[in-house]
Amino acid sequence: MLALGIDPGTAICGYGVVRLDGSALKPVDFGAVLTSPASSTADRLLEVHRGIEKVIQQYKPDVMGIEQLFFNKNVRTAMAVGQARGVVLLAAAAAGLPVLEPTPLQVKQSVVGYGKATKDQVTYMVQRLLALREAPRPDDVADALAVAVCTLHTYNLRNWQESGL
Amino acid sequence: MLALGIDPGTAICGYGVVRLDGSALKPVDFGAVLTSPASSTADRLLEVHRGIEKVIQQYKPDVMGIEQLFFNKNVRTAMAVGQARGVVLLAAAAAGLPVLEPTPLQVKQSVVGYGKATKDQVTYMVQRLLALREAPRPDDVADALAVAVCTLHTYNLRNWQESGL
Repeated sequence: MLALGIDPGTAICGYGVVRLDGSALKPVDFGAVLTSPASSTADRLLEVHRGIEKVIQQYKPDVMGIEQLFFNKNVRTAMAVGQARGVVLLAAAAAGLPVLEPTPLQVKQSVVGYGKATKDQVTYMVQRLLALREAPRPDDVADALAVAVCTLHTYNLRNWQESGL
Repeated sequence: MLALGIDPGTAICGYGVVRLDGSALKPVDFGAVLTSPASSTADRLLEVHRGIEKVIQQYKPDVMGIEQLFFNKNVRTAMAVGQARGVVLLAAAAAGLPVLEPTPLQVKQSVVGYGKATKDQVTYMVQRLLALREAPRPDDVADALAVAVCTLHTYNLRNWQESGL
């Protein structure tokens, strides 16, 4: 099973593609769509959309994960994240991809085993779980990979429960 | 000159297409993309995107207007509006359409001549300015038309200033 995890943003949109093979997690690809502050917001959103669309077309994941909103951010940040989130959700819907929206707590719980883990702890555990030589950078990429891992666990468990086995 | 005004939302996305002919304003089309609460957020965003894309393809406006964020809304609302805003901005960017983002104050000022006008005053003045038989409903449609009017005035003035006449 293949999951695409997303950490949405207009300047940096992190993505991580992870495969669950039996009980083994394997990193397939990860990175970020970076857009120029010199471009208009609309053009940057177009770049984010096309970048994620390309990742979906290339890897054909079974499910996409994107974190639920952060209540601690301010209204302006929430609006900006929302815009990036919108164009990413659109790419998923256009590709017929199911979307899971774990909370930040669920993502940390899934990766670190502790819902209040720090960013560094998440990055460290993502590196270990996926056996990466180096820590994924920037944080947006580590977060996207963490969301992919959480999404695999959740989606896999859900499918297993629904199968009635 | 033709402007498309948008009042973004995931459940209701209002749009208004208005022509400025000399100094005369003419309503060309207006309405709303309505989406079902039974659909997923991603699918609703897809419907909003496709609906606005269709309006752009049909009327080929010269400019799109969409209000700036509302600072008085809460974080959850801002995120939801942001998502809808994102897919609408994407449609504009994909069509190469310039985007103006007037503030709510500028829109009210432009339509009513008073920045603190009520929703009813905006609806009333939109109906009068565009010589509509009935008041545009719901509010989202009246707002979208008001944004289109403000966008025409701003864009027209800007072009006129840049022409150096």
